[in-house]
Amino acid sequence: MTKQSIGPRTLLYPHPDLIIGTYGSDGRPDVMAAAWGGICSSRPPAVAVSIQKVRQTYENLMREREFTISIPSVDYVREADYFGIVSGRDTDKFAATGLTPVKSDLVNAPYVGEFPVVLECRLLQTVEIGMHTQFIGEILDVKVDESVLGEDGKPDIEKVRPFAYDSMRQEYYGSGSVLAKAFSVGKELKK
Amino acid sequence: MTKQSIGPRTLLYPHPDLIIGTYGSDGRPDVMAAAWGGICSSRPPAVAVSIQKVRQTYENLMREREFTISIPSVDYVREADYFGIVSGRDTDKFAATGLTPVKSDLVNAPYVGEFPVVLECRLLQTVEIGMHTQFIGEILDVKVDESVLGEDGKPDIEKVRPFAYDSMRQEYYGSGSVLAKAFSVGKELKK
Repeated sequence: MTKQSIGPRTLLYPHPDLIIGTYGSDGRPDVMAAAWGGICSSRPPAVAVSIQKVRQTYENLMREREFTISIPSVDYVREADYFGIVSGRDTDKFAATGLTPVKSDLVNAPYVGEFPVVLECRLLQTVEIGMHTQFIGEILDVKVDESVLGEDGKPDIEKVRPFAYDSMRQEYYGSGSVLAKAFSVGKELKK
Repeated sequence: MTKQSIGPRTLLYPHPDLIIGTYGSDGRPDVMAAAWGGICSSRPPAVAVSIQKVRQTYENLMREREFTISIPSVDYVREADYFGIVSGRDTDKFAATGLTPVKSDLVNAPYVGEFPVVLECRLLQTVEIGMHTQFIGEILDVKVDESVLGEDGKPDIEKVRPFAYDSMRQEYYGSGSVLAKAFSVGKELKK
């Protein structure tokens, strides 16, 4: 159990790979990849994602105040990575990848049609934290591909096949198998 | 690509399982499990975690303004689940699980000695979001077990063996294999 200091790093396991969808002022759909984020409230259901001011998405979010989060499956790791490499200022990322921008029913923002899970969000507030602005969005609805639903009507992770981001090695890694039921396996330790 | 609405849910893949360590007013070490969180800033390196006011950890955090985040390996899924089931008000969670509370060098908070990765955090600010309070902490240091370091001196995910939480099925699932290098595999799509 000897521990070694590796300094103040933005380390956590796992980081998600969130694809943030917004419209530009010219109506062009844009997407970016963000790993600094997570759910931040149950009621209202809300998600937080941190974005730097230099990003096109920052401008779009501040203007439109609505966004989507598309969650890619492992089949789209290359496209998701691309979304984090190039800027929407000078590139049409949908055209370059051949993926389909779909306008959300509920908010004025596009999502990635091919990705299995989509959150439709409306901005509740922003929080300034150092070089990032945290956007907190209420989740108005979640839409999932019918093909990833299990027999219980819930998304089945073995069909969604999401991946995670390792910030130390700068790699993406897949999901493993189910280990245990939550709020259940720990009961064995109750006296 | 037909999508089905499943309503406004706190869904994301993957959710982390963060074990928040604090001291009680009597100096007793306490831990709780939190899945609503993630990194929120690069400079300063900062992490956000949302906690309800009813929790013992909320009280401890408001008073001490310092905390740790321990990240469990798959070997401790049972203990991590237990930390989310019982309350520190009436239970000594370390005694019940036999795990070791270790006082952080840098902050006045305990971490779980047996867990491979630990973040030492000082509160920067709190944000009220519905029924949760989001605690944003600066990451002052990260400490990792020497046994999980790879030859490059970085934590090796195949040695850390973290797991994730599936909020739809309320299950924990493990990590899969490395898929691709980030900021690299997407370059293939650059024109």
